Amino acid sequence: MKVIDLQTPALLVDAAALEHNLATMAAALPGQRLRPHVKAHKTTELARGQAAQGHRAFTCATIREVEGMVAAGLGEDLLLANEVLDARRLGALADQARITVAVDSAETVEAAASGGVREVLVDVNVGLPRCGCAPEDAGRIADLARSKGLGVRGVMGYEGHLMLLADAEQRRTMTADCMALLSRAAADVGGEVISAGGTGTYADNTVATEIQAGSYALMDTAYGAVGLPFRQALSVLATVVSASPPGSEIQPPWVVADVGLKSLGMDHGNPTISGATVWFCSDEHTTFAPDEPRTVKVGDRVRVLPAHVDPTVAMHAGLHLVDGDTVVETWPVDLRGW
Amino acid sequence: MKVIDLQTPALLVDAAALEHNLATMAAALPGQRLRPHVKAHKTTELARGQAAQGHRAFTCATIREVEGMVAAGLGEDLLLANEVLDARRLGALADQARITVAVDSAETVEAAASGGVREVLVDVNVGLPRCGCAPEDAGRIADLARSKGLGVRGVMGYEGHLMLLADAEQRRTMTADCMALLSRAAADVGGEVISAGGTGTYADNTVATEIQAGSYALMDTAYGAVGLPFRQALSVLATVVSASPPGSEIQPPWVVADVGLKSLGMDHGNPTISGATVWFCSDEHTTFAPDEPRTVKVGDRVRVLPAHVDPTVAMHAGLHLVDGDTVVETWPVDLRGW
Repeated sequence: MKVIDLQTPALLVDAAALEHNLATMAAALPGQRLRPHVKAHKTTELARGQAAQGHRAFTCATIREVEGMVAAGLGEDLLLANEVLDARRLGALADQARITVAVDSAETVEAAASGGVREVLVDVNVGLPRCGCAPEDAGRIADLARSKGLGVRGVMGYEGHLMLLADAEQRRTMTADCMALLSRAAADVGGEVISAGGTGTYADNTVATEIQAGSYALMDTAYGAVGLPFRQALSVLATVVSASPPGSEIQPPWVVADVGLKSLGMDHGNPTISGATVWFCSDEHTTFAPDEPRTVKVGDRVRVLPAHVDPTVAMHAGLHLVDGDTVVETWPVDLRGW
Repeated sequence: MKVIDLQTPALLVDAAALEHNLATMAAALPGQRLRPHVKAHKTTELARGQAAQGHRAFTCATIREVEGMVAAGLGEDLLLANEVLDARRLGALADQARITVAVDSAETVEAAASGGVREVLVDVNVGLPRCGCAPEDAGRIADLARSKGLGVRGVMGYEGHLMLLADAEQRRTMTADCMALLSRAAADVGGEVISAGGTGTYADNTVATEIQAGSYALMDTAYGAVGLPFRQALSVLATVVSASPPGSEIQPPWVVADVGLKSLGMDHGNPTISGATVWFCSDEHTTFAPDEPRTVKVGDRVRVLPAHVDPTVAMHAGLHLVDGDTVVETWPVDLRGW
């Protein structure tokens, strides 16, 4: 199949860029040094490519992602890096897969134990105002978990507020500060695992025993601005469906593509179109002005680069792996939902 | 089933508010005066409720929405209020349903004709920099369509840039200006239909023969700020999964709910939580500070109000119709995708 034959909007992944990204990360963080985060692509076929690079342990953000990875035979070592109050669906998989869940409170410890989960990591707050216990409380939570019969594998702590810092020196220094907190907690908790990091800090975080990066595989324009060695693999293919009336008072001339709020994650802002300025997105439309007026015509195809990969992928039922103008393979985005 | 038994995040629709909204709109715009837009809810069961109020003609934004409405037996008069360059999937339904598509160029006229579509509306630009031909060009496009054997039912023109104008007088005046353009085009085009408007201008637009409102059924916080007689029916149910460490430097105390960028449309900004200030959303999390610190605890359920209904609904596979604490019915959001 050719790219031109695809119904738009369609999620495209450049096969060569994906391969480059997976290989580059595997060279930097081989094997268990990386625990790829599947939330960024929600696609078990892509996870298979990461496993082929030597990464056998994965990170998940939802129970559904864990279930889907187990069903795909990728359940060797799955971390749900997220707190849950009802762990029964995870416990139901305990005989088929190794499943570890994050805990940061008495309530989440209790949910893990009563849900039938066998192993946990203590989630430690390292500065991002989101989940995680205080570093000095991690030992107590580990003891509580052990008292409930749970295996405690170690700690995790996500320095998410540093991921998009463009100043490399500042990112390194702040990552070290965050990881000093996590190291202290790790000493109190025990266990082998210090799980942390992401695409933005994968090279800076030298304390974590494993890095939870996900976006590196497909990339987006926000991460693209940080100066990482990964290529933009993801785009949304669109068809230009309308062009501005020649005599319009509004200038310069614009065109409209059939990709919008329902096919693009918008929390990091507007998407990018090469050779054009994006004006705004509507439900099923992006209005943009080509740098050279009237060079983009109704019926043309354009590739739209999303600002944030994770929510974009989650809006699509499938993604098309492409090599130039050829669709090499189509993969279901099979880890969507909760 | 009780609301408390739902897996979170879960899309909730307050049954009484929905009923109020459908009845209020049907009283203002009975029968064919309203052509409800299904893009706002993507749910054929909800469309059935609109049909039960007397609205038999519907507006769609995607080919998939048209196909789904036909499959549900709601194909009496479907308008795809959007330009398409490949109309073959629409043409394939022409014997089962009445399907009209918007055209605004020679290319889209050609696509409709060659795809087997039988009727069109000429889409006229009335000020929003998106689709639509120049008003003075509408007659020529209608002639072109007729020359290709297409039935021309009239015109459409969407004053989308006025929908969220809070100043009622300004909204009325500007709507009248937009509709003066559309009226002129309608005179050139001929036909019976002048299709326009939306939830924000449904009461102001007295020129359109039919109003294409969709958001009124479920509502969101953006439309809620405009002073319309519709109630907030939609919310996303979330579970509080984490609370800030007592000694955190970051103050005031915050909590984290399991709803985020993958379950909330973010293009209109952060969601709203009653009695709290929302700080930010991550993929699967919303961090917020309750007005009364420490009153919201891990395990609590909260209802999160999205800023934009349309993309929010499109992220969920189903919605739960609720009456207080009881789930009355669960409907598939069956018009998703393209």
